[in-house]
Amino acid sequence: MDGYIGWPLVLKQLSLGNEILGIDNFSRRKNVEEMKSWSAIPILSMKERIKLLKQDYGKKIDFKEGDMLNKEFINDIVKNFQPESIVHLAEQPSAPFSMIDQAHCVYTQHNNVIGNLNLLYAIKNHVPHTHLIKLGTMGEYGYEAGLEITEGFFDIEFRGKKATIPFPRQAGSWYHWSKVHDSNNIMFACKLWGIRSTDIMQGIVYGTRTSEITNEKLHTRFDFDEAFGTVINRFCAQAVIGHPITIYGEGGQTRGFLALIDSIQCISILLEKPAENHEYRVVNQFDQQYNVTELAKKIKTIGDKKGLQVDIGSFENPRVEKEKHYYKADHNKLRELGFKATREIDDEINSMLDDLIKYKDRIEKKKESIVKAIKWRS
Amino acid sequence: MDGYIGWPLVLKQLSLGNEILGIDNFSRRKNVEEMKSWSAIPILSMKERIKLLKQDYGKKIDFKEGDMLNKEFINDIVKNFQPESIVHLAEQPSAPFSMIDQAHCVYTQHNNVIGNLNLLYAIKNHVPHTHLIKLGTMGEYGYEAGLEITEGFFDIEFRGKKATIPFPRQAGSWYHWSKVHDSNNIMFACKLWGIRSTDIMQGIVYGTRTSEITNEKLHTRFDFDEAFGTVINRFCAQAVIGHPITIYGEGGQTRGFLALIDSIQCISILLEKPAENHEYRVVNQFDQQYNVTELAKKIKTIGDKKGLQVDIGSFENPRVEKEKHYYKADHNKLRELGFKATREIDDEINSMLDDLIKYKDRIEKKKESIVKAIKWRS
Repeated sequence: MDGYIGWPLVLKQLSLGNEILGIDNFSRRKNVEEMKSWSAIPILSMKERIKLLKQDYGKKIDFKEGDMLNKEFINDIVKNFQPESIVHLAEQPSAPFSMIDQAHCVYTQHNNVIGNLNLLYAIKNHVPHTHLIKLGTMGEYGYEAGLEITEGFFDIEFRGKKATIPFPRQAGSWYHWSKVHDSNNIMFACKLWGIRSTDIMQGIVYGTRTSEITNEKLHTRFDFDEAFGTVINRFCAQAVIGHPITIYGEGGQTRGFLALIDSIQCISILLEKPAENHEYRVVNQFDQQYNVTELAKKIKTIGDKKGLQVDIGSFENPRVEKEKHYYKADHNKLRELGFKATREIDDEINSMLDDLIKYKDRIEKKKESIVKAIKWRS
Repeated sequence: MDGYIGWPLVLKQLSLGNEILGIDNFSRRKNVEEMKSWSAIPILSMKERIKLLKQDYGKKIDFKEGDMLNKEFINDIVKNFQPESIVHLAEQPSAPFSMIDQAHCVYTQHNNVIGNLNLLYAIKNHVPHTHLIKLGTMGEYGYEAGLEITEGFFDIEFRGKKATIPFPRQAGSWYHWSKVHDSNNIMFACKLWGIRSTDIMQGIVYGTRTSEITNEKLHTRFDFDEAFGTVINRFCAQAVIGHPITIYGEGGQTRGFLALIDSIQCISILLEKPAENHEYRVVNQFDQQYNVTELAKKIKTIGDKKGLQVDIGSFENPRVEKEKHYYKADHNKLRELGFKATREIDDEINSMLDDLIKYKDRIEKKKESIVKAIKWRS
């Protein structure tokens, strides 16, 4: 519950009256430190966070420090708490981090795949009807096929036979593949044991604010280093300190995006409207598609109005990816469940820049972490 | 090089004049022991095997004991030996073993996925043009889709766009999924680093003999326990001791099959005709399709002629699988490369039964291992 999405999700769920047990091993703080960076916006320690929450929510909030790789820990937690739903956000979430070297590749796949297996077994053993919401990524599909991307499965005809099959996964980093491995394992667990799961193929999340972040002590972390800063967030932090926005190559890379507040909204909807028993449900969770050049231009326009004098740079692409490609992905299921985007991207960029300007010095201090050039082919 | 296929492959390659470095961690012997079983046909220790081979082949054969999970070991081996080709057979190969419990599931996926990643990095680091031949399984595809199965990829049209995409993988055990994870990681490594690999989707292998197994000391192991005995082999061992042949459920499960001697032939062809640089080549490696009831009947017919009085039993299916289903899989690539099946299945069953009758007492002693009923949903 210590991560970028986990913390505001807990705030939202508490505000709705739900009882929460959070867990974390604090690997995000450690891994960002390894990148010689930190959260641009200062955040409290978990001890302080829990103390604060307990003032308002008492016994409705609890926290245990522990690791998904510790199967006894996960089994005991699940057995004792008997959760109605589990939101699994506890993975190493950075593609560049997974591409640093062999150790980081193996750490990522091991941590994510085995941690997820441990959770699946804990559910099977102790709460077989619990709804597992698992965070995957739109990056599982990749964009290699050049097809319109569906939500998890699609219908095809081949040599005269029709079938509904998983949409092909053609991921682009060891991290993204770890998420594919997870999705496959979860799909199998649903079939094997009849557990129920929603696998979220999430777009890239950006922003600093949610309805429940009502004062500085409640801020969620905000990363801007090359590995853990997601693209809009990273670009905004760059704009604030006068660092050229780091477009990789041609800048035609197109992805789906979603404001933080809307990511929390979507997960909350999925919690209220769970998958059926035995169901492996896949949703594509994003609001709009943009390419990175469009995003950089938006940030420049909005930043320049604030007097930031934003430069857009062009950097050698350290990744192995197409810099211009067809991209069109379905994202209907969450809308059908009631999701409505609440934030325009321009407004969100505007408030992000305002929030970050206050912490310009903190970004300045760690600006070396913005371009470390983790090369996919190093 | 201590396994069912590894050992006769080494014999074949030595006979062709190639220089071999074998590695093994002896997990197969240990894991079969855990199943309270052993090889029906006695085999030498690796020490004895190497001593024997050195008499004929001298420095052309060497062996190192070690584990794929030990990245320094693998790196050093690959760096020092500078192999032209690597045949990776070093995985936990049993579906039932992976389904015993959480520990066996995690062991299987960890061992296979991380071991394979370590090998990919060793290749990238030290021998980027080496041809990696990796043993996968036809079970990666599963049979859920009800489509004709292609060799790795297929062409589809969807919403007006055409694409070549990976054939869907819908595996049926934690073991089979570990192989899918491997395939995905290898496909990515080929794209990322330009390494070359042939991923073998192998059918089920049966038999006791190859051209190079010319005396008793050269036998390869032959497993018949529930976990490590493949289906024809297991049925033949059952026939020999008068145990009813263990058909699971309706017995309509259809798979592709291949005689051991022809598996060795296929791998040898792939060694001689490697994938191109950057190429991720997938071949379906089997000779004929049968369903398990057909196989049981064949074994009964041949066994009865030898006076074995073979019974065919019907056992509650411990697996989660369809017992009757459409199955048709392409297997053209190896034929185009020159593969011709050398053994009729009836002849192979006949010689298997002859070989096993000699060791009837060894099968009898471990007959409890034939039906341990590892339940997929236990």
